[in-house]
Amino acid sequence: METIKTKQTEPYLKVIPLGGLGEVGRNMTLLEYKDSILVIDMGFRMPEEGMPGIDYIIPNIAYLTKNKKYKNIVGVVFTHGHYDHIGGVPYIMGRIGNPPIYASPLTRGIILKRQEEIPMQPKLKITEVKDGSKINLGPFKVEFFRQTHTIPDNLGLFIETPVGNILHTSDFKFDKYPVNEEPTDFAKLKTLGSRGITLLMSDSTGAEQEGHSLSEREINKNLGEIFKKTKGRIIVATFSSLINRLQQIITLSEKHGRKVAIVGHSMKTNVWITKELGLLKAKKGTILKRPSDVNNYKDEEVTIMCTGAQGEETSGLMKIVLKEHPTVSIKKGDTMVFSSSVIPGNERAVQSLKDDLLRQDAIIYHYGMMDIHAGGHAKQEELKEMMQIMRPKFFMPVHGQYSMLVANARLAEECNIKKENVLVIDNGNIINLQKDKAYIDTKEVPANYVMVDGLGIGDVGEVVLRDRQVLAEDGIFVVIAIVNKKTGKVQTSPDIISRGFVYLKESQDLLKETRRRVVMAIEGATGSGKIVNWTYMKDKVRDDIGDFLFKKTERRPMVLPVIIEV
Amino acid sequence: METIKTKQTEPYLKVIPLGGLGEVGRNMTLLEYKDSILVIDMGFRMPEEGMPGIDYIIPNIAYLTKNKKYKNIVGVVFTHGHYDHIGGVPYIMGRIGNPPIYASPLTRGIILKRQEEIPMQPKLKITEVKDGSKINLGPFKVEFFRQTHTIPDNLGLFIETPVGNILHTSDFKFDKYPVNEEPTDFAKLKTLGSRGITLLMSDSTGAEQEGHSLSEREINKNLGEIFKKTKGRIIVATFSSLINRLQQIITLSEKHGRKVAIVGHSMKTNVWITKELGLLKAKKGTILKRPSDVNNYKDEEVTIMCTGAQGEETSGLMKIVLKEHPTVSIKKGDTMVFSSSVIPGNERAVQSLKDDLLRQDAIIYHYGMMDIHAGGHAKQEELKEMMQIMRPKFFMPVHGQYSMLVANARLAEECNIKKENVLVIDNGNIINLQKDKAYIDTKEVPANYVMVDGLGIGDVGEVVLRDRQVLAEDGIFVVIAIVNKKTGKVQTSPDIISRGFVYLKESQDLLKETRRRVVMAIEGATGSGKIVNWTYMKDKVRDDIGDFLFKKTERRPMVLPVIIEV
Repeated sequence: METIKTKQTEPYLKVIPLGGLGEVGRNMTLLEYKDSILVIDMGFRMPEEGMPGIDYIIPNIAYLTKNKKYKNIVGVVFTHGHYDHIGGVPYIMGRIGNPPIYASPLTRGIILKRQEEIPMQPKLKITEVKDGSKINLGPFKVEFFRQTHTIPDNLGLFIETPVGNILHTSDFKFDKYPVNEEPTDFAKLKTLGSRGITLLMSDSTGAEQEGHSLSEREINKNLGEIFKKTKGRIIVATFSSLINRLQQIITLSEKHGRKVAIVGHSMKTNVWITKELGLLKAKKGTILKRPSDVNNYKDEEVTIMCTGAQGEETSGLMKIVLKEHPTVSIKKGDTMVFSSSVIPGNERAVQSLKDDLLRQDAIIYHYGMMDIHAGGHAKQEELKEMMQIMRPKFFMPVHGQYSMLVANARLAEECNIKKENVLVIDNGNIINLQKDKAYIDTKEVPANYVMVDGLGIGDVGEVVLRDRQVLAEDGIFVVIAIVNKKTGKVQTSPDIISRGFVYLKESQDLLKETRRRVVMAIEGATGSGKIVNWTYMKDKVRDDIGDFLFKKTERRPMVLPVIIEV
Repeated sequence: METIKTKQTEPYLKVIPLGGLGEVGRNMTLLEYKDSILVIDMGFRMPEEGMPGIDYIIPNIAYLTKNKKYKNIVGVVFTHGHYDHIGGVPYIMGRIGNPPIYASPLTRGIILKRQEEIPMQPKLKITEVKDGSKINLGPFKVEFFRQTHTIPDNLGLFIETPVGNILHTSDFKFDKYPVNEEPTDFAKLKTLGSRGITLLMSDSTGAEQEGHSLSEREINKNLGEIFKKTKGRIIVATFSSLINRLQQIITLSEKHGRKVAIVGHSMKTNVWITKELGLLKAKKGTILKRPSDVNNYKDEEVTIMCTGAQGEETSGLMKIVLKEHPTVSIKKGDTMVFSSSVIPGNERAVQSLKDDLLRQDAIIYHYGMMDIHAGGHAKQEELKEMMQIMRPKFFMPVHGQYSMLVANARLAEECNIKKENVLVIDNGNIINLQKDKAYIDTKEVPANYVMVDGLGIGDVGEVVLRDRQVLAEDGIFVVIAIVNKKTGKVQTSPDIISRGFVYLKESQDLLKETRRRVVMAIEGATGSGKIVNWTYMKDKVRDDIGDFLFKKTERRPMVLPVIIEV
């Protein structure tokens, strides 16, 4: 009885995801126990369609800023250096009191490099951690263990808490033969699992995919085949964040007597950071200083490694393909290797890029043709293996679209984790956790999108976005009329400024008729004298002109009446 | 010697694609011989990204309208009733003298139905043709033969011309066990091939896919399994143009005692047309009058067949999922079947739709999980079989992205068609064809995009589109200042209207400073008196304010200065 009583009065640990659930990216989770909050990751995500002009979406931290709750933060721990886990730092850290950070050397390096790009940042307090590090943060004791992914220095988290142990997988895959890092340490994972896991928080990104992820050894073999048989230049496009792939391309180039030119700012930066830290190896002279240096070598001695595999408009590869790059362009016989998947939403851009390459007689290899790319996320068999090793009491799928979380939850049921102990939730939901009990709170914390646009954080909301969408569809139509306050008459012909609607020079008749209607609308509303009801007057002009333009064109530009009384 | 001489002076037949090459959709090709032009298809395509507000893109017909060349048109032949082959009709026919049309009954029905939706159309002159029809059009003798696709009444074209026979495959696949139509007539194809083919124009949409397309019998079997085991309601989302799939769903519903409600305007229309023509069969009472009628039946007696499989915002399915449909919403236990592929570019919308369905506890089947969708296009093995049957002298891949055309060309080489006789070209290129000779002309005809926006055809060009993109990114910022023409001073504080930039109510400091700078810019330019150089003045305000706003926000709204002298 004693035990049960204690349990009932014991406080719950709250697990609060502020991002990363029901979406890919923007990962950030809080563990809150009494007056202590541990923050795990602080990522951003890319905007959705219908969000023109938005740079990133970051987690909503209203829960932390309200009543200065952030003062309870005992530390921020980072799993790895990808932007969906660290990208929120420059937009958030300064607003939550700049709490202490714990990160691996590469994660730290990437965070600090990023800080340089964003103005007015506080000096971060970062403690380096590595595989095996243990740190005490209030009621939380965090142990870091390495996990295989696509970037070195990726760390899973084993967190001792007053309600039991929480294991957070970070992004991971199991790879017995990785490139540029050690094989997965199953012995270590088993040791952790044997200590008893109350809650397993596991990566869901690959949960809809059957089987086991490909080993980087396979990828390396296939890339090797291409290097072996190619006579001309090799251009490899991949993600700049796939550090281990970059290593493969560099090593293969060295093996086949090729120098490597790097095109793309983020790739250059990442190569620089990882080389500095000794996490990427290249012989002296392998990496060329400038892209134009390729012209000093024969075609068979050249690899160009670039960003832009997603068909991004401003990427180095796009400039090369569109003949806009100052020194590099596509030559007949170039071999283009897309060592990357296509991120959903980018299919059309990538197709168009491929078409343009083919028109210039390049030879193309992409992942639809052979295994020259593997993702960094565990697929179903690996996810189940992780569950079997950890045998958690409770299971919470994290990182991924809702369909991925649901798929991961189904795997948990296959692994005999009780259905009621599988917690599929959305951002802003709260899990109340005790050793033997967990439930989803009826309360929620704010978790809606916070948009970053230029220097503005959160100042672009629904109204501004809706206006942008309307402006994008049919443009704007500004009507300027000067009204004589004595007579109520419109002086001279109203001016019209329009953008994105029709090509004005070719629409003189339409404009003439519109001006006439503006005068009618205004003079009908003024009667004969001073404007009394400005709102009515402006609404009338807006509606009359809007209807008229729609009737004539079936377009609905935003109509802005500017009426000036003199 | 005689023969050779005749050949040299003999005119070439020109093959001029105005759309459909290097893109999916907008299919339209001209065959021109001396003073006669035969038009094949007249489709549209959907806009690309970065074309906000655009409804469709249609072929450029400048070549036909220049010097009224369209007067030479001897006829327009249509292969089938999909919008990428007929969608251009209401935007083009009236501008090229409304020439006679030859189309199968269903194609005719769809064209006429579409005409009703677009105002001010000429009465079309359509002659019905069917499998086996032969018509003489000037120097062209066109024979129609049926081809299996996803819509009934699809016709390939065998065209006798003065330079030999041209075979146009239409969109096609080989299916020995199709649903709702006859199996592929290989005997007929062989007969046509044996008559000798100078030029084969063959569908390339599936040319990058290995193997053979799935038979509809397979799809039907798998859909049948779902119908068999499902207890609750079945909601099937598919393309409204996949008439043969609609038939399958209706037949399966009848077999399993389900009534069918149809949600979505285009699907209702297509069911109506095909039923009228006897090309779609449903027992009396199977198809419910209104979606709300589903509420009169038990869940296991209901199928809902709807559009919206691409996650289209305004589709019936989206309304159902977002609880915005007046009478139908998702129930726990509903089974949602996506009998469709995802069109490139729609991946994110479809993902979001699936997530929302899962949040409402629906069960989902999609084509990634089992074969419940097959496309309508021949894959590599079928394409090669077609070439082997026709054994053409020249080969021209049509219909598809450039990468698909290239893939189809490679297949032709595998089939021993000489490399120099394989003609991979772009829209607007001209092939000059004789019996034993073909070359690509150095001249080109205009083939750039013509955009349809509302009632406007071609009036939205680069300038308007670029303005829309700028407006979408960072909005608009209108500055209104009244200047006293005697003193050159700004009267009262300048007005500011902004949309899509920042939320004005929360940016009062920014606005105050902006107003101050507007006054500075204007009064700096006026000196003290009348405005002399209006262009300079406006540019100065635009630049100063633009720079200031960028410095403060890192956004670049379109700045429109309105300066009024009184």
